[in-house]
Amino acid sequence: MRPLIHPDISSITLHGVLHALSDPMRLAIVRRLRDCPDQACNATMPCPDMPKSTLSNHFRILREAGIICSRREGTQHANTLRRDDLEARFPGLLDAILQAAAADPERRSPAS
Amino acid sequence: MRPLIHPDISSITLHGVLHALSDPMRLAIVRRLRDCPDQACNATMPCPDMPKSTLSNHFRILREAGIICSRREGTQHANTLRRDDLEARFPGLLDAILQAAAADPERRSPAS
Repeated sequence: MRPLIHPDISSITLHGVLHALSDPMRLAIVRRLRDCPDQACNATMPCPDMPKSTLSNHFRILREAGIICSRREGTQHANTLRRDDLEARFPGLLDAILQAAAADPERRSPAS
Repeated sequence: MRPLIHPDISSITLHGVLHALSDPMRLAIVRRLRDCPDQACNATMPCPDMPKSTLSNHFRILREAGIICSRREGTQHANTLRRDDLEARFPGLLDAILQAAAADPERRSPAS
């Protein structure tokens, strides 16, 4: 079983955060985690038809960018937003992106 | 000569903006344009050794994401940041990203 990689706060890069959140599905996942924290992997899936491997890859990118924390619970992962860590690293950035997502019709549908 | 594509405000997407700014060199260009507006292409180049074609591609991505406006001046392009347009589309987003860039050591060097 591969280890779950979580960068410490000082290793979170702006490049990594922006890249991770530039994907509509990953942004939808983050919005869902903000609204319903500590959900299992499937429960946060904005698109139920997405292959599990694709979804897992999205969660891996979010995790390795320092945006979410995942822990194994049986056969699933419970995921939480690293909101405090991101706020400490880049104050105001996550909120600004989530507010922009709410203003972007392209982003509104999958997460709402 | 290929036309320069500039999306109107309503066509600027969050995905496009985040993707464009997730590249350190493009972010450095934007920071330079913020500090020294209306510069020609070469004058905004944070890395003088970069091939012209690579630099042009960075400017194209920024332009087509709605982040900069380019106009031809002889054999060069003069580029300006579409700060007001971005602020109207996604209030606070560009400032939050630029502030984060200033806090990110990885980003500090090329633009300073």
